[in-house]
Amino acid sequence: MGNSFGNFFRISTWGESHGGGIGVVIDGCPPNLPLSVQDDIQPALDRRRPGQSDITTPRKETDTATIVSGVFEGLTLGTPIAITVPNSDHRPEAYAEMKEKFRPSHADYTYQTKYGIRNHEGGGRSSARETIGRVAAGAVAQKALQSACAGIEVRAYVERIHTLGLEDFGSGEAPLFPFPSLEQVEATAVRCPDADLAAQMIACIKDARSEGDSVGGVIVCRVRGLPVGLGEPVFDRLEAELAKAMLSLPATKAFEIGSGFAGTFMSGSQHNDLFENREGQVRTRTNRSGGVQGGISNGEELYFRVGFKPTATILQPQATVDQSGAETELIGRGRHDPCVVPRAVPIVEAMTWLVLADQWMAQQARLGTAPRS
Amino acid sequence: MGNSFGNFFRISTWGESHGGGIGVVIDGCPPNLPLSVQDDIQPALDRRRPGQSDITTPRKETDTATIVSGVFEGLTLGTPIAITVPNSDHRPEAYAEMKEKFRPSHADYTYQTKYGIRNHEGGGRSSARETIGRVAAGAVAQKALQSACAGIEVRAYVERIHTLGLEDFGSGEAPLFPFPSLEQVEATAVRCPDADLAAQMIACIKDARSEGDSVGGVIVCRVRGLPVGLGEPVFDRLEAELAKAMLSLPATKAFEIGSGFAGTFMSGSQHNDLFENREGQVRTRTNRSGGVQGGISNGEELYFRVGFKPTATILQPQATVDQSGAETELIGRGRHDPCVVPRAVPIVEAMTWLVLADQWMAQQARLGTAPRS
Amino acid sequence: MGNSFGNFFRISTWGESHGGGIGVVIDGCPPNLPLSVQDDIQPALDRRRPGQSDITTPRKETDTATIVSGVFEGLTLGTPIAITVPNSDHRPEAYAEMKEKFRPSHADYTYQTKYGIRNHEGGGRSSARETIGRVAAGAVAQKALQSACAGIEVRAYVERIHTLGLEDFGSGEAPLFPFPSLEQVEATAVRCPDADLAAQMIACIKDARSEGDSVGGVIVCRVRGLPVGLGEPVFDRLEAELAKAMLSLPATKAFEIGSGFAGTFMSGSQHNDLFENREGQVRTRTNRSGGVQGGISNGEELYFRVGFKPTATILQPQATVDQSGAETELIGRGRHDPCVVPRAVPIVEAMTWLVLADQWMAQQARLGTAPRS
Amino acid sequence: MGNSFGNFFRISTWGESHGGGIGVVIDGCPPNLPLSVQDDIQPALDRRRPGQSDITTPRKETDTATIVSGVFEGLTLGTPIAITVPNSDHRPEAYAEMKEKFRPSHADYTYQTKYGIRNHEGGGRSSARETIGRVAAGAVAQKALQSACAGIEVRAYVERIHTLGLEDFGSGEAPLFPFPSLEQVEATAVRCPDADLAAQMIACIKDARSEGDSVGGVIVCRVRGLPVGLGEPVFDRLEAELAKAMLSLPATKAFEIGSGFAGTFMSGSQHNDLFENREGQVRTRTNRSGGVQGGISNGEELYFRVGFKPTATILQPQATVDQSGAETELIGRGRHDPCVVPRAVPIVEAMTWLVLADQWMAQQARLGTAPRS
Repeated sequence: MGNSFGNFFRISTWGESHGGGIGVVIDGCPPNLPLSVQDDIQPALDRRRPGQSDITTPRKETDTATIVSGVFEGLTLGTPIAITVPNSDHRPEAYAEMKEKFRPSHADYTYQTKYGIRNHEGGGRSSARETIGRVAAGAVAQKALQSACAGIEVRAYVERIHTLGLEDFGSGEAPLFPFPSLEQVEATAVRCPDADLAAQMIACIKDARSEGDSVGGVIVCRVRGLPVGLGEPVFDRLEAELAKAMLSLPATKAFEIGSGFAGTFMSGSQHNDLFENREGQVRTRTNRSGGVQGGISNGEELYFRVGFKPTATILQPQATVDQSGAETELIGRGRHDPCVVPRAVPIVEAMTWLVLADQWMAQQARLGTAPRS
Repeated sequence: MGNSFGNFFRISTWGESHGGGIGVVIDGCPPNLPLSVQDDIQPALDRRRPGQSDITTPRKETDTATIVSGVFEGLTLGTPIAITVPNSDHRPEAYAEMKEKFRPSHADYTYQTKYGIRNHEGGGRSSARETIGRVAAGAVAQKALQSACAGIEVRAYVERIHTLGLEDFGSGEAPLFPFPSLEQVEATAVRCPDADLAAQMIACIKDARSEGDSVGGVIVCRVRGLPVGLGEPVFDRLEAELAKAMLSLPATKAFEIGSGFAGTFMSGSQHNDLFENREGQVRTRTNRSGGVQGGISNGEELYFRVGFKPTATILQPQATVDQSGAETELIGRGRHDPCVVPRAVPIVEAMTWLVLADQWMAQQARLGTAPRS
Repeated sequence: MGNSFGNFFRISTWGESHGGGIGVVIDGCPPNLPLSVQDDIQPALDRRRPGQSDITTPRKETDTATIVSGVFEGLTLGTPIAITVPNSDHRPEAYAEMKEKFRPSHADYTYQTKYGIRNHEGGGRSSARETIGRVAAGAVAQKALQSACAGIEVRAYVERIHTLGLEDFGSGEAPLFPFPSLEQVEATAVRCPDADLAAQMIACIKDARSEGDSVGGVIVCRVRGLPVGLGEPVFDRLEAELAKAMLSLPATKAFEIGSGFAGTFMSGSQHNDLFENREGQVRTRTNRSGGVQGGISNGEELYFRVGFKPTATILQPQATVDQSGAETELIGRGRHDPCVVPRAVPIVEAMTWLVLADQWMAQQARLGTAPRS
Repeated sequence: MGNSFGNFFRISTWGESHGGGIGVVIDGCPPNLPLSVQDDIQPALDRRRPGQSDITTPRKETDTATIVSGVFEGLTLGTPIAITVPNSDHRPEAYAEMKEKFRPSHADYTYQTKYGIRNHEGGGRSSARETIGRVAAGAVAQKALQSACAGIEVRAYVERIHTLGLEDFGSGEAPLFPFPSLEQVEATAVRCPDADLAAQMIACIKDARSEGDSVGGVIVCRVRGLPVGLGEPVFDRLEAELAKAMLSLPATKAFEIGSGFAGTFMSGSQHNDLFENREGQVRTRTNRSGGVQGGISNGEELYFRVGFKPTATILQPQATVDQSGAETELIGRGRHDPCVVPRAVPIVEAMTWLVLADQWMAQQARLGTAPRS
């Protein structure tokens, strides 16, 4: 209950932060797809793993993946692909205090109350470490979808850290920043493709860390090359699936597609995207819809934004209660990210690929059942 | 594909704007629940129906519901509850132009391309009329959940129309406006419980209409009395399900829970909700989390916001293309709402009830399987 | 919970025997399929309806269907297709006794205990009348699948009534009886294509009725023209889905595919189907597998059998208990079939089409996502 | 697609016969359940593993399980439980011939055609080795369900091997053989609780093996202590779920519940189970229904039978075709069971526990949402 995602391209994740490992089972990946850890899975996980730069947690995890099933002689079999990643950097002593005290704005209290038990080491199942399975599965979805439909590109990047952001956010318009290459995004530890701004963001994150504090921010995710017709109204609209995917990520508090909240300040005559014929294609002059109309992709660039709250773990004393309900104080310890946003970039991309692969397959099921004249 | 929502309290909706009617099948409603059209379904539909005030579309539909199955001698049977509402105000001549031309920022083009066919009359399946089934089902979910767990209240209201809004929006804090009664919300046609502001909003909407234009806005939805423990991590977190539910509604572009985008400007030390013991209960001093931590309700007020774009149908000439791809011009006709936000209030509530009932049942399945000592 | 079937071609049925009607919502039907009540739905329902011959119940129901949504100008829209059939022959007085007493081998006691309530009129939801929705949906599945993949034929017929049967049953071999036409099956009221045997069967059923008794029997269902590759191992094997579909029908107690129970008496060297190359096609010399190997269709004729118990309603006094648990006696009243098997033939076919359409779509989703070289 | 089972207590299995291992992810297991490999999982797997007696395959696999997630300090967390079992006895050279030739009555041809690829080593995903995940998950389901509802017992045993069987089969009556203890079943390698018959069965299997041949048989599975009310009509009836579960097992061809096919020879007056009041309980005098009425358990003993075909792998030359379609001959090699039925006993029990746990949770979700007066 709650640990699977997707209908056709369906993943089931498992694992706690400090248990035996983290993993995912992917059901629905097409057969005959070349797939390897080295070329496909590990590069994605390396973008997510801790310790990748000096603004992330120093937790030492190589996050080395193994494909245990579903691939034979380098090709997918069409059977479930199981991928596992062991947990190696286990320091239970660092979590002794958390056994008794609930960390503010963490999931300790709610897990304990919902389940009557929790693995308090490193957050257990509520740890962002759980997203390893998503990233691994996202890499498979990406490979599958790009093999089936060349030209689809998904690119997420950091648009804002704390108060430092590109102008695009809040304009209600499609991003002005040119669609960046993966290299541009990866050029800085903060994954903002504007180098100057990135430097400021990194400084901001380091400042927060030096104060034992944390910051949040916004990721924008853009998709181009998407065919018209993906999305399953009425409940499984493309934006609805994306919203669920994003709000299922740790630390997310907000999602908007296209013009988002800014668009609610516009009038209809300002907001509507007029159609035109551009080189034989039906296109829109503007793209406040964000690439989706009526829950279905319209061939324009798909873009949406995800808001991440500041990391809940801070190295300052905070009032809280313990398991008995008694008021007490807690000082965050252990290794943590002063800002989760940079490492969330590949996770946002992974969830996007998973949504797109699933919706693609739904449409293929329909097309493949169309009347043959 | 795409027309069902929920896992355990599961609904399937059907119907086009101008076909034989609109309806819903509800599977999973518990037995022995008193349920009637008059007391439960119709009042909810009446809040949604067109023509209810002078700021809504004058389309003449009474939206009269019939419970066709699942209720016997006034009580639910535990079998599927089918509810139907006929379409009565059918004016196909009003839609002749739309048969050939794609309305900007509507779903005409995407439906046509995805399915290779569409019911062009009034938007067909993409019409907001589809939400009738949701509202009817939401009324059943409300009845079921309130019968099982007394004290849960869901209250949505309009927080902003165009540029006119309560201060709460964008603060990153829990709503300051006192939790309004249903009567307060229903007191004005715009469903904003601040009477002065409501008057301004109504004027704003009328202005837009008189200009053949439209406006958007924001609805806030608040839930109190919710027990700790609802939400199914990791993918079916409470906020993820709510986000999907809201983004599956027509005209929505944005969702945020708790501090939302505003919270991304805070530092962790500003943002964290510290725990305290309040009269024997574990509570948080502030509520930037919005009632959810780790995807699970924490007993605080749940609140989230939904952004609605300005109505796409405007009574001004707009550039567009026709089905052949040729550029042309379209002037919106027909009856429409210059602002969908007031009528969306009961729809947002309905979707919230559906999410809560579904999550409640998931947790009950778990609790009912707990080891008996 | 429990009222939907299929993953991609998905139906949700609703309705009680004596409520407002019976219906079905079909989600996943492809667009642009010509569909009408007159040509597609009603003929199927007419094969199922009561009163069609002198060996069925005289209950007067025309079972007149209406397509309420999902079809526009004669073509499917790709949106949910809602079909309703009203209940017209309502005689509550006939069921007064059943309000208090549990009919033996009926669902009265279990429904009452499970749900704490039941619609006692005519069996409520447990009535075979519920299958109307399945038959209507099956007609749509048939139309869709035959349009997508010409040449698939599904033919069920009565192989045995009580002790009177074709030799095929229990042989462990593929049916020797030539694949009959629909006309051959429909030629007799009992739906056995062997005319002489059919006459004996009809006499047997009439004898049972004259004694106030009932009889059961076996239906065989055969599918030819099925492509290789349908079936989703491991849990959704073709035979597993068919078994579920058939055992979900009222009065069924047994299912076997291919050699079935008879095959368990054979040795492997007797039972194996040897492959050969027949006119360039990989085929098997025998077909004890029943057209399925490893849960996937192998291109041979698919055949399976379904066992139906004798009708539980008999017009003889039977010992039973009432709702208070007190022992009492009940004499069956009302209109019933002395043998449900003939009318179950179109229902078995409908469920088969639903399984095949669903499995077809799963495979199309996979094929449509295959790597494009 | 196809590799998950259950709605509430949901498992996803993965793994090929000769890949990196076999495993399962269990989602929905309640928290706070004591669970260990040693006490719960391994004993179940040991009943299934190869080499356990002289009538099973000598393949050397210890099938040693590891719980990788979902258990903390000996208790379940309510999070997904991942269990893995490595493949150790890997002899690819034994399968060289199978790379090119399709084994008769195996899944080689259908997998190859459906997926365009297959792992030919030991059957890949179609190997019975896949059932390891089911057995491990079934052990968890058993533990959970017995903890929640004491007194439920599931006991499967071999009722017939080839032509040697208990009289119960085919009688249409509830089993006369006294409900055996686990020890009685496990007393012989063939898992038939009648010691004399078991000896004959073992001799029969050894004879088949010495001739390079194989035999099939029938397993009966009996459940007592089941509460009234499990089963989700109309599609997810208890017998429908059981039928699917059983027909999803390799080598199964037939399923019957209660009187089964034999019951189709009876008249209604012979077949009906009359109700009586036995010590204050509503009970039936006979139990031809097999413990299920209207798809819902009625408190009587649940019993059903599953037919297994003779093992397809035989050590005799058989005509077949190769991947190019050319006719050729194949002699079975490798290690195989001359009869799969004895080892299938714990697998049938496992699938039964999985069905019961899932249906239990569905009913708990309903009960937990009932109106509180």
